[in-house]
Amino acid sequence: MSSSISIFLAGLCVLLLSPTLCSGSRILVVPVDGSHWINMEIILHELHSRGHSITVLRFAKSWYISGNSSIYTSIDIPALEDESDRNAFTTMIQDVMDCRKSFAFTRTLCQQDLLTSMMADAHKMLARTAATMLEDPDFMRKIQDAKFDLMLTDPALNIGIILGSYLKLPMVFNVRWINTGDAHFSIAPSPLSYVPFSASELHDQMGFWERTKNMLHYLHSVAEKHFLISPIYSDLLQKHFPPGTDLFSLQHAADIWLLRTDFVFEFPRPTMPNVVYIGGFQCKAPRPLSAELEAFMQSSEEHGVVVMSLGTFVSALTPEVTEAIAAAFAELPQKVIWKFSGEKPSSLGNNTLLVKWLPQNDLLAHPRTRAFVAHGGTNGMYEAIFHGVPVLGLPLLFDQFDNLLRLKVRGAARVVEATTLTKEDFLEALRDVLENPSYRQNIQRLSELHRDQPLSPMDTAIFWIEYVIRNKGAAHLQSAGFGLPWYSYFCLDVAVFIMATAGAFVWALVFFCRVVCCRMFRRKMKAE
Amino acid sequence: MSSSISIFLAGLCVLLLSPTLCSGSRILVVPVDGSHWINMEIILHELHSRGHSITVLRFAKSWYISGNSSIYTSIDIPALEDESDRNAFTTMIQDVMDCRKSFAFTRTLCQQDLLTSMMADAHKMLARTAATMLEDPDFMRKIQDAKFDLMLTDPALNIGIILGSYLKLPMVFNVRWINTGDAHFSIAPSPLSYVPFSASELHDQMGFWERTKNMLHYLHSVAEKHFLISPIYSDLLQKHFPPGTDLFSLQHAADIWLLRTDFVFEFPRPTMPNVVYIGGFQCKAPRPLSAELEAFMQSSEEHGVVVMSLGTFVSALTPEVTEAIAAAFAELPQKVIWKFSGEKPSSLGNNTLLVKWLPQNDLLAHPRTRAFVAHGGTNGMYEAIFHGVPVLGLPLLFDQFDNLLRLKVRGAARVVEATTLTKEDFLEALRDVLENPSYRQNIQRLSELHRDQPLSPMDTAIFWIEYVIRNKGAAHLQSAGFGLPWYSYFCLDVAVFIMATAGAFVWALVFFCRVVCCRMFRRKMKAE
Repeated sequence: MSSSISIFLAGLCVLLLSPTLCSGSRILVVPVDGSHWINMEIILHELHSRGHSITVLRFAKSWYISGNSSIYTSIDIPALEDESDRNAFTTMIQDVMDCRKSFAFTRTLCQQDLLTSMMADAHKMLARTAATMLEDPDFMRKIQDAKFDLMLTDPALNIGIILGSYLKLPMVFNVRWINTGDAHFSIAPSPLSYVPFSASELHDQMGFWERTKNMLHYLHSVAEKHFLISPIYSDLLQKHFPPGTDLFSLQHAADIWLLRTDFVFEFPRPTMPNVVYIGGFQCKAPRPLSAELEAFMQSSEEHGVVVMSLGTFVSALTPEVTEAIAAAFAELPQKVIWKFSGEKPSSLGNNTLLVKWLPQNDLLAHPRTRAFVAHGGTNGMYEAIFHGVPVLGLPLLFDQFDNLLRLKVRGAARVVEATTLTKEDFLEALRDVLENPSYRQNIQRLSELHRDQPLSPMDTAIFWIEYVIRNKGAAHLQSAGFGLPWYSYFCLDVAVFIMATAGAFVWALVFFCRVVCCRMFRRKMKAE
Repeated sequence: MSSSISIFLAGLCVLLLSPTLCSGSRILVVPVDGSHWINMEIILHELHSRGHSITVLRFAKSWYISGNSSIYTSIDIPALEDESDRNAFTTMIQDVMDCRKSFAFTRTLCQQDLLTSMMADAHKMLARTAATMLEDPDFMRKIQDAKFDLMLTDPALNIGIILGSYLKLPMVFNVRWINTGDAHFSIAPSPLSYVPFSASELHDQMGFWERTKNMLHYLHSVAEKHFLISPIYSDLLQKHFPPGTDLFSLQHAADIWLLRTDFVFEFPRPTMPNVVYIGGFQCKAPRPLSAELEAFMQSSEEHGVVVMSLGTFVSALTPEVTEAIAAAFAELPQKVIWKFSGEKPSSLGNNTLLVKWLPQNDLLAHPRTRAFVAHGGTNGMYEAIFHGVPVLGLPLLFDQFDNLLRLKVRGAARVVEATTLTKEDFLEALRDVLENPSYRQNIQRLSELHRDQPLSPMDTAIFWIEYVIRNKGAAHLQSAGFGLPWYSYFCLDVAVFIMATAGAFVWALVFFCRVVCCRMFRRKMKAE
């Protein structure tokens, strides 16, 4: 029996038979736009089909989040300004490309700096928006009157965390990273010796210089958190929350963190009891392709097809790089389907089909697909793992460098630099991925491991969302460590006390010995 | 639908539909005697029913592990001596009782000292036994020829770890604690500020003095590991394993740790991806009682029944304490069933039935059962949670003090001191547990949470055992941190380097400023 069917049936059993069915709950959702919304919406479809009533908060000028939906009611966030600036990404990509020309050791620190300045602007907007929202009596009355049972939010932006905490709702985070870095680093002990800091482009086997770099990334983020981000929210939190509340204590109040990763992909690292891994929850069995696409796939014959997509960042490459890629594709015996926007490259070959949108999951599942050229977004990486398709990575921003590194160290991907890409480099790397069977074998091993789970990631997500609703939270899974000041958390006060006591003891012993020795010496002298 | 049935059906689905059924595997089991064997055997029954072929290594003079079984083949360990000394426990309990008369702060450290000296003797025996085993060519040929697929062992004793590593078998540990303390402390980061060291009798909310005590327990164990235990095994490991192998690196080679606890019971704390929680896997729906016992239960009418069992430590109490308990029971309106061995107490009331053995799970599930008087062994604690019966604890040894503390801080148990117990104290505590409804409410809340799992703990255990067999290990879940020397693990080398660099930079800056200032001053002076 195929593993997909078996996991589906097992999940069905578990969900149908959950101790107390809690359908009909009222769930308030504060999502993040873009690719984050795409995967949040998949979970909302599932929750809707289980009878829950869903309300989504969105910005009026959202890119992806529709105001009209058959599965949820939407409420516009009372924002003072249009909070979603799509052009910021394009500028950011250009800046990252400049960073990548610098020396390897400082390259990732340069990127972290860039991200910091971008996030600082975002945090200021978010703090203003949260204040506007909490101080809008009509909006707040509407939200309070709805008597929600749960806040489901993506903490890459803070509005959901702030609103959920204000309303004292049980909270579930659907998360890959949070606005202060890697979600893992905020909740689980992360020894810097084998847990690479997010965006450091390090893996879990580190020598001295890698560990130094990792430590610098960490120190950078600590400084950023305390000197840059915390002050932005202090007025808001002082006004609307009990004294002593900061953004990080609100993050720690989550009942369950649904982490969009798993340990087939992520390096093994410490985790916490309220972290649930749902990496690949969006993957599913393919639907048939359109007749046109199917004909194109079949026309590739034994050579197969290369699928290329940069997701949301579809038009992020420079014209030179786009030309280089098109020219390289033209030299392949394979056919190519390329999700493309903008002016058609002059070097485009007859074997390459440009499309505005492509059914990525269905294409990756197709038996003719031989390789996936991707930017390294989490969604695409999990689809590649799920369907066992080797990857050629062109990372651009955020966690994409780290994501691709994880496949690379497992021998399932090659990665090239989008900044300096030439036709020759791209062609060499792509031919390697297509012709060296180890890439396919390695990603198919990952695929087997990823599918070998007692419950599908989606069923796991739904189980734990409903668990929090059923049990009105999951306080028993929250660590007691979060309430401590940092010197107590690391037991520095205790260490100083024990060392001082031991020192005093040794000193007293030495003093005593000296006194005794002196007396004995004096007596001896006297006797002589 | 009742939650037991639903979890059973869900588990059935998952296990029947596992990606590749891997029945018919050959599993080598090295268990630990006593109550540890009782719960290992439950897992073996399940594995046997799924078609696996099981071989159990046992000492010839085992207390509990039979040489004849319908579910496994047994092989005697070629031991030089009888390794299982039951009397050691009785002496140990007496010593622990002496410890408990000391000042509260040092009491648990005194117990840890006792355990250390007991464990040192055990380690010497184990090292001798392991050497005898590895150097017995007939025994080793027999084991090697059997071509096992998996080593399933309880690492409370080391023989399984050593043999499994020597044979390079994938390994699954079925574990509550290991011979060097808490299993958690060997595999997961354990911040001493909120993770109580095992046997410290601390919980996760600690003030300064509690954290100091916790740190002392930890330092004690570190010293014990490196100066006492490691040297015992060094000859053996040097002879039979690659250079640099120590006992702790062998422990870290486990593919999966099945931990006999969960976070309804355990305080929330960091964990690792290859740790799977199976607390309560032995709990099951009750079978009907014998006619005689059922009649006794019913005769209690509305007052109900108190069940008392000290498990393996059935005869560990002093005659005075036994008399005090019997006299206290005699004053209750409830009936009492007491698992008892030895001379009948003179103060025994008519309401108390002494039995040599009792069907604990079935009795705890009985609607007439009102309270459970127990020593705090893990098995009993999970049965109390599963069936929602409040506990009066009489801890004697090992993890029993810690186990009962976990129920106590959740308001589901009272704990009394077995050393100094009087009739009045026992009666007051037992009446409190029987008459104050909060104990029952609290343990029933724990019961609900414990049962609210996507898979039953037993199905989880079986899934992960078969996962390791199917995938020939689970190396991708093992942390890279274990291979590092301690100063690299804690990044002390990096911290020193960064501080030295920063110091040198500050010094150079100060030096530069001084030189510049001096020159400017001199010029000024000259000019003047």
